[in-house]
Amino acid sequence: MTPSNTAPPTMTIKKQDFLDLDKQDPLADFRHEFELAEGLIYLNGNSLGVLPKAAKSRMADVISREWGQGLIRSWNTHNWITLPQRIGAKLAAIIGAKDHEVIVSDSTSVNLFKLAAAAMKLRPGRIKIVTEPGNFPTDLYILNGVKNFIGQDIEIITVPSSDVIQHIDQDTALVCLTHVHYKSGTMLDMKRITQAAHAQGALMMWDLSHSTGAVPLQLNDAKADLAVGCGYKYLNGGPGAPAFLYVAEEHLKTLEQPLTGWFGHANAFAMSDDFEAASGIEKTLCGTTPVLGASALEVGVDIMAKVDPQQLRDKSLALSEYFIRLMEPLCETYGFELATPKDQSIRGSQVSYTHPQGYAIIQALIAQDIIGDFRAPNILRFGFAPLYVRFIDLWNTVDALQRIMQSNSWDQAQFRAKNKVT
Amino acid sequence: MTPSNTAPPTMTIKKQDFLDLDKQDPLADFRHEFELAEGLIYLNGNSLGVLPKAAKSRMADVISREWGQGLIRSWNTHNWITLPQRIGAKLAAIIGAKDHEVIVSDSTSVNLFKLAAAAMKLRPGRIKIVTEPGNFPTDLYILNGVKNFIGQDIEIITVPSSDVIQHIDQDTALVCLTHVHYKSGTMLDMKRITQAAHAQGALMMWDLSHSTGAVPLQLNDAKADLAVGCGYKYLNGGPGAPAFLYVAEEHLKTLEQPLTGWFGHANAFAMSDDFEAASGIEKTLCGTTPVLGASALEVGVDIMAKVDPQQLRDKSLALSEYFIRLMEPLCETYGFELATPKDQSIRGSQVSYTHPQGYAIIQALIAQDIIGDFRAPNILRFGFAPLYVRFIDLWNTVDALQRIMQSNSWDQAQFRAKNKVT
Repeated sequence: MTPSNTAPPTMTIKKQDFLDLDKQDPLADFRHEFELAEGLIYLNGNSLGVLPKAAKSRMADVISREWGQGLIRSWNTHNWITLPQRIGAKLAAIIGAKDHEVIVSDSTSVNLFKLAAAAMKLRPGRIKIVTEPGNFPTDLYILNGVKNFIGQDIEIITVPSSDVIQHIDQDTALVCLTHVHYKSGTMLDMKRITQAAHAQGALMMWDLSHSTGAVPLQLNDAKADLAVGCGYKYLNGGPGAPAFLYVAEEHLKTLEQPLTGWFGHANAFAMSDDFEAASGIEKTLCGTTPVLGASALEVGVDIMAKVDPQQLRDKSLALSEYFIRLMEPLCETYGFELATPKDQSIRGSQVSYTHPQGYAIIQALIAQDIIGDFRAPNILRFGFAPLYVRFIDLWNTVDALQRIMQSNSWDQAQFRAKNKVT
Repeated sequence: MTPSNTAPPTMTIKKQDFLDLDKQDPLADFRHEFELAEGLIYLNGNSLGVLPKAAKSRMADVISREWGQGLIRSWNTHNWITLPQRIGAKLAAIIGAKDHEVIVSDSTSVNLFKLAAAAMKLRPGRIKIVTEPGNFPTDLYILNGVKNFIGQDIEIITVPSSDVIQHIDQDTALVCLTHVHYKSGTMLDMKRITQAAHAQGALMMWDLSHSTGAVPLQLNDAKADLAVGCGYKYLNGGPGAPAFLYVAEEHLKTLEQPLTGWFGHANAFAMSDDFEAASGIEKTLCGTTPVLGASALEVGVDIMAKVDPQQLRDKSLALSEYFIRLMEPLCETYGFELATPKDQSIRGSQVSYTHPQGYAIIQALIAQDIIGDFRAPNILRFGFAPLYVRFIDLWNTVDALQRIMQSNSWDQAQFRAKNKVT
């Protein structure tokens, strides 16, 4: 594959170049593992990943054989009981953690609550949580829930990510940031910010929702303390898939989290009245494992586990780089503005533009089976899931966009959207 | 059907009577809606319900068409966005509540946490939570989680359910009880205890995990304030199905819960930095809806919604009554002791016995495809899900048990279990 940073200037790249890039793509075969309708260009894997073909047969089996025939016995015979740990261990390899530091459980939001509350207990006397405004809102909402219920004296400091480091101090219990920004696609320097948090004795929690399966991750190497992540984006785990969480080994023994349900007990089936937390990562579990959702997630994780992270990153950057180049003339002519860093080293696997008519333009693209998405007030997001997005998809997307803008057909789309014409 | 309270004395009931009872059973046809292996007697629907046949095709459709083809668009085109409310409204009819008082979300444990924490906010200045020892442990574990994280000064009073009323006082914020006891099958008087809680200004929360789909419920009539319930037992929603919760209309406006994730926002997709809780029951949602699990649950709920509650109760009591009668000689001869009330008015839809060799005996039954379960230290539980358990199943179960005890084959089972021979 042509390394992304040597992509030729816009004027000289041709449609055939994109077909050639696909032929050279070492990850090209992964596309066959997913269901993708003929003619569909799906640039929204950063929001909901696609269906792995294997998930269909796997789920039919889980439903008919494991649930239908095995019934209650399947907790043991089909190892439902250890699903959270088993998938967690597979995820650990993907995010650069140890097997016993990662587990599948609940939703990203619920896991944020558990770990943020736990962080305040791990750093008693410290009252600040430092985070970023304008990021995926559930993170801020949950931190406020922790403040309102766990400790009214908690101070939530929201500062732009570029200023975060200078706001971490000896009163800071926790720094909580999303690694790749959901709107802009900006990727933060995990190692540097974690180090800065540690320099002040604070804990570092990363939200990996827009990173896992999109960019290489090395949580242990970065010395991250805590992390959460989403199962239904780049991991292709299915709509509303269970999420995961990570706790660094050094905190496993002392960590206490508030959602002490029976699955987090050292011996859940002893049915004792007294809660005794499991000694390992299982202490972060709460209720009964959602077996159907977790089983679908495992299929997506199994595919991702086969991917070479460097090849993933190379293709991801090549995709975003080519897309940016293709879009340059449209920026000049139609007023799109790149909202994603040009610097590859701080870019995730998505590219965003602002445009005052963003909503209508995205609708016009969707009408042509090109699925990107819109985020208020004016962001057009294009996610590049390297396992199934092709280079030719970029060409075709920008070609369609060019026609839409040229013919003002987005205006019509806006009219139709406003007037609920479908 | 012969009313249960006129069941003839033990000595005079014959196998044919049970076959006749099945012929007269107005609910008999429901059995055809479920997958049940030939020869299997499943008396564990109080732990994990069986697979509705319709769930297989529904899930194949959700996976292939809604997820695979619809992708992100299905949040709107297939109404994923309102799944929690839609299933909630169907459940409302089953538990005697208003449509907008019930919603599907997270696990029972997580929902207990939300509502227990919310109750403490609704009754500021009150410090006590009154509950029962020895009940399903997640309830106690979660209440302790609320104490340890939300307010260290909370006092959790655990007293036998018969003494609960006299322990409710003006310091009591919340009374939290399971309606049908998971081990003994004892059913509490919802109306009377709720009234006693209200008389002291306390809120009443019911855990309906072992009641919903098993006994008729009238939450509004009982003036219950809060409730949680499980989707995977008598509702047949699938292993680890999402749970549900209920908030009485009068509390919807003022209730605040700690797990303020984005799905609980008044306008989640505005992606605002500031949390503004939804005005209705949606404020209790947290993360993204688990679409696969919720879709399977809906199939089970749809079946239950068709059932006449009085017919359900009649059959449930007839099943447990006949089982108790059949077991009487075995109690005398082999030392089983009934652990479930003889008084039908306080019995759920399960019957339990104690026996010192309970574990081995249950294993011996399971080896014959008769699935009951064992709860430490010595409880044998038999759940009677009225939609698919037949009267003849009772006869065959007790007949098998009689042979097991007679031949001491449970002893062999015990030997095999201890020595891990399978």
